Amino acid sequence: MNPIAFPAGKPIDFAAIGRLCIDLNANEINRPMEETMTFTKYVGGSPANITIGMARLGMKTSFIGKIADDQMGRFIIHYLDKNGIDASGVVTDRTGAVTGLAFTEIKSPTDCSILMYRDNAADLLLTAAEVSEEIIAGTKVLLISGTALAQSPSREAVFQSLQYARKHGAVIAFDLDYRPYTWVSPEETAVYYNLAAEWCDIILGTREEFDMMERFEHNPERSDQVTAAKWFNHAAGIVIIKHGKEGSIAYTPDGASHRAESYPAKVVKTFGAGDSYAAGFLYGIMQGWDIKRSMSFGSAAASIVISSHSCSDAMPGADQVQDYILRCERGEITAS
Amino acid sequence: MNPIAFPAGKPIDFAAIGRLCIDLNANEINRPMEETMTFTKYVGGSPANITIGMARLGMKTSFIGKIADDQMGRFIIHYLDKNGIDASGVVTDRTGAVTGLAFTEIKSPTDCSILMYRDNAADLLLTAAEVSEEIIAGTKVLLISGTALAQSPSREAVFQSLQYARKHGAVIAFDLDYRPYTWVSPEETAVYYNLAAEWCDIILGTREEFDMMERFEHNPERSDQVTAAKWFNHAAGIVIIKHGKEGSIAYTPDGASHRAESYPAKVVKTFGAGDSYAAGFLYGIMQGWDIKRSMSFGSAAASIVISSHSCSDAMPGADQVQDYILRCERGEITAS
Amino acid sequence: MNPIAFPAGKPIDFAAIGRLCIDLNANEINRPMEETMTFTKYVGGSPANITIGMARLGMKTSFIGKIADDQMGRFIIHYLDKNGIDASGVVTDRTGAVTGLAFTEIKSPTDCSILMYRDNAADLLLTAAEVSEEIIAGTKVLLISGTALAQSPSREAVFQSLQYARKHGAVIAFDLDYRPYTWVSPEETAVYYNLAAEWCDIILGTREEFDMMERFEHNPERSDQVTAAKWFNHAAGIVIIKHGKEGSIAYTPDGASHRAESYPAKVVKTFGAGDSYAAGFLYGIMQGWDIKRSMSFGSAAASIVISSHSCSDAMPGADQVQDYILRCERGEITAS
Amino acid sequence: MNPIAFPAGKPIDFAAIGRLCIDLNANEINRPMEETMTFTKYVGGSPANITIGMARLGMKTSFIGKIADDQMGRFIIHYLDKNGIDASGVVTDRTGAVTGLAFTEIKSPTDCSILMYRDNAADLLLTAAEVSEEIIAGTKVLLISGTALAQSPSREAVFQSLQYARKHGAVIAFDLDYRPYTWVSPEETAVYYNLAAEWCDIILGTREEFDMMERFEHNPERSDQVTAAKWFNHAAGIVIIKHGKEGSIAYTPDGASHRAESYPAKVVKTFGAGDSYAAGFLYGIMQGWDIKRSMSFGSAAASIVISSHSCSDAMPGADQVQDYILRCERGEITAS
Repeated sequence: MNPIAFPAGKPIDFAAIGRLCIDLNANEINRPMEETMTFTKYVGGSPANITIGMARLGMKTSFIGKIADDQMGRFIIHYLDKNGIDASGVVTDRTGAVTGLAFTEIKSPTDCSILMYRDNAADLLLTAAEVSEEIIAGTKVLLISGTALAQSPSREAVFQSLQYARKHGAVIAFDLDYRPYTWVSPEETAVYYNLAAEWCDIILGTREEFDMMERFEHNPERSDQVTAAKWFNHAAGIVIIKHGKEGSIAYTPDGASHRAESYPAKVVKTFGAGDSYAAGFLYGIMQGWDIKRSMSFGSAAASIVISSHSCSDAMPGADQVQDYILRCERGEITAS
Repeated sequence: MNPIAFPAGKPIDFAAIGRLCIDLNANEINRPMEETMTFTKYVGGSPANITIGMARLGMKTSFIGKIADDQMGRFIIHYLDKNGIDASGVVTDRTGAVTGLAFTEIKSPTDCSILMYRDNAADLLLTAAEVSEEIIAGTKVLLISGTALAQSPSREAVFQSLQYARKHGAVIAFDLDYRPYTWVSPEETAVYYNLAAEWCDIILGTREEFDMMERFEHNPERSDQVTAAKWFNHAAGIVIIKHGKEGSIAYTPDGASHRAESYPAKVVKTFGAGDSYAAGFLYGIMQGWDIKRSMSFGSAAASIVISSHSCSDAMPGADQVQDYILRCERGEITAS
Repeated sequence: MNPIAFPAGKPIDFAAIGRLCIDLNANEINRPMEETMTFTKYVGGSPANITIGMARLGMKTSFIGKIADDQMGRFIIHYLDKNGIDASGVVTDRTGAVTGLAFTEIKSPTDCSILMYRDNAADLLLTAAEVSEEIIAGTKVLLISGTALAQSPSREAVFQSLQYARKHGAVIAFDLDYRPYTWVSPEETAVYYNLAAEWCDIILGTREEFDMMERFEHNPERSDQVTAAKWFNHAAGIVIIKHGKEGSIAYTPDGASHRAESYPAKVVKTFGAGDSYAAGFLYGIMQGWDIKRSMSFGSAAASIVISSHSCSDAMPGADQVQDYILRCERGEITAS
Repeated sequence: MNPIAFPAGKPIDFAAIGRLCIDLNANEINRPMEETMTFTKYVGGSPANITIGMARLGMKTSFIGKIADDQMGRFIIHYLDKNGIDASGVVTDRTGAVTGLAFTEIKSPTDCSILMYRDNAADLLLTAAEVSEEIIAGTKVLLISGTALAQSPSREAVFQSLQYARKHGAVIAFDLDYRPYTWVSPEETAVYYNLAAEWCDIILGTREEFDMMERFEHNPERSDQVTAAKWFNHAAGIVIIKHGKEGSIAYTPDGASHRAESYPAKVVKTFGAGDSYAAGFLYGIMQGWDIKRSMSFGSAAASIVISSHSCSDAMPGADQVQDYILRCERGEITAS
């Protein structure tokens, strides 16, 4: 059974708040970045990727964020427009901030890393006063991303968005997305992640991210059950804990745990797996599917993205995911 | 009836977290500071003053904070010791931060101002990891002060102290104590004040402070009832809203409102009135007195402090407050 | 006559101090950056470009600077090595600083702009203590670049390099290279540019850059003669003032002024013109050529670079420049 | 012979640029500050003290600096006015900066220390554009103080004042006044001190201060002769090196060295000795006295100040110094 009830009568299916940035993906892969010479530009950032994924799956989507007043910022807006994502909640910085960058390095399909430019990034300058209450009042789901909690004033903007979501009855999903380099200390991170997570209906993160959040608590065996139970005492209805290669487990307040099918892929790189999974899963439960089917759909979406060069631009449509599942079931796709 | 139930079997009556600083009070009063030549040094800071007030009233008290590694910091520790306040939760900064200063100017009993030194103040450097869970586990009441929310890492330390207080069942009192100069914007202030206030049993502030907290809400008539009702939907049992000369009103979840007696005073200055009132009021309700009697006791304590040169050092004992009330009732004390 | 005497018996011909960064040049040209999708990576930064230019011209070169501890930094070191530039004076940052970036946009051959990433750039973190006295003691020429004066501690590193150059008798060339976005104010810029320029033998800049330096002085007609005379009262032997399309003029203490030939080019973009000119000119006077011939050689080198996609990588060898001059003289190259 | 020629026909004898702050001197002396309860407020800051000293000695004086827009700032202006010091060159900060503070602790006459408040101090916010060229054009002597070089934009203001002084022929005196806590590193300090000192006619400092300036040089025996000779290669005519209890030595370009008489004093504290010495010495050489007599006059002024509670307010008049010398010569004053 699906423990999340989505509000009816809202014009927007899915809105996200947070990071909009640029991925610069090395065109020459399977080598260190010292030896790559050209890069291709894509829209990036975890909440942006998930929103693009939801748009591709046919949902009505909206974004709340802040872009730099430069060519990169305008490129992002054009891309959102082109994908049918409402960008009326994206404001433009006027202080000379820049667009965050992520240069990706693909040494091998399983040895990928990112070189980040996050100093003076426009997305972290979104203020609480710039958050559109109207968008949040009109959406069924609000997704927040942990990175947007990393610095003021973006941190306050996220908390204000949670106030609006609670006031207007939006389901809140929290993609932990913990990036240590934007934070002062793990203690600071733990404090704000815990404050935010109390209000959230769906929480998705890795075991390591939940460990970080339990820094001031006692869970010495790193038990998923202990972790999930904590959040069911607050607002949560689904807690998904990702265990890397061992797969993800979804916990529900009834004590059940759920595991997804996984699908083979000809892996190009691992980037984007989590974002496409999140989009696929959220899409599924919004369709009224059970948790297991939603997770499988997310897994298939992830397999498609990791077989491609980009994250955002490779986000599949629903037919494409269904087709991928069928082809896997027919044995037409096997692991690389 | 008293809507707050205090936990039994705790070794500490009252602990506070936040600002410890130095007041430098002009000795030559009733003139602008340009013309004052000498100053007397006292321990200051709203939560420090309230804790000193509680200690003078005979409560077992403890403080959680951070001091500079200098003569001012050591003076503060000596003063806490001398007043029987447990300072085991006060850590010493090692980064070269300074002790916050407040130079007071008393142009007339009703025209007082403060010149603050708050740059690089040690008290705002308390971290979440430095907050003693043991002290909070052992106290009946934890008092937080809004100023400690103004900057990181002190902001995180306060939120962590709230986590511990909730976990261990301490009653939480929130003295709003809003000082605009330490904040980036009113929006930022509103976000964190609202986050913290949700967890608090007793909230004390001026009408203007509550207005600031309602910046993202709709209370156009600045109604106390609207304000109080909001917090009764969360943890609050008492909300006290101060209306300056028109006096303070305490609201309770049963819909009642309560006003205190006020007592005459030969006013020297207005500083310290709020802190002594808070100490007196909290002392009263911890004795099991009803709200009205507790408020009156707080008012009498305030009248004593504003008749004196200092804030902290003038905090009265319980007998002194009782005696003041009796003398007022006998007409022996009249307003200046 | 050449007013500069170069010291003999030094193992290095040319050393530069300052910015080492990455250019990301749009592959799709003649359109706004919003519409470009791929970028090619080159080493960049004015003093880096000039040094690469000098190395290509056959000079023994060395660089003093600071790189990020990342793939971009290592790419820069590899490129210097590959071009025979001694990088023993390039230290690696350990604070998490990044490599400065310059995204170039070529809307048309004459409408080019740059999107800079200069926040937390490693090159500006070079300290005075990290400047190699040994390299400066061993070089005939030290080139400093104005951008390195923009922030501490790089500013101090440049002044210390000037102390060493004066002590050991190196000829000092100053490429003004004023980039307003890295400076707090034009007044700040003027102060440090003037301090540095007093010690310099050769000063190259645009009329606008010299105007900025005369902010606290009186030169209402923006007279080149007034400007040059000021520096001849200090250490300067050559002052080159660039007047955009009207060409450059070199002034010497004997009262003479010198203009160069200019050469046609099939212009791709204007970036890199100044750096290749500087390399060509300095090479010429180090060969003992007269000023006019040196300027012409610089102009031809510039024409080659602006006909190419990159700045650094297009720096020509001496034969290539001579050949270009001959072909222009034969009418084989005409303007685009 | 006096190696300094002062310009004639200037309306101001002496102008200083730099720090204006507040001393808060403990009234209860011979104990640690933890035990002092009251403080008396004085104008302070080394260049301010020297200027007050010059004014008391009958010189026409002017000050260039920046004060906070608060009661402390206004107190400083009133005090300058009262002492006949032209404050037309003192601008008022509008950014919310504070007045620097120095709490003095006198544990014993020879064990004195200072607790400084220098964060966000207004004096360090003076900009190059705010420096009055008119005042510097009209003064015989400009005194700069090393502390004003510690941070931007005050650092630029000092360098701009040096440009004006050189342009208009003012004699420049440099009081090294090195306070490590306002500097990022000793390397940074050395770079700017050396840049400034090149332009100065008179340099006064302790052996330790000159050692700091020689951080990048070779003077292993810490020889005064080596130090002085370096500056005589630039603009200096007098270099005074203070050796603590062993006294001060003045060096001149003719190879001579000069030592002063010292005078007994009933020492209250050591603060202010250097400032009163500087004022007395500069007064003497401006009278045309020889170096030895000028140094003795400075020593006597210093003995008067260290016998008093304040620094600035105790600065003596010329008759008072002469009288002190006579009384010492008659044996009427002996050391405490």
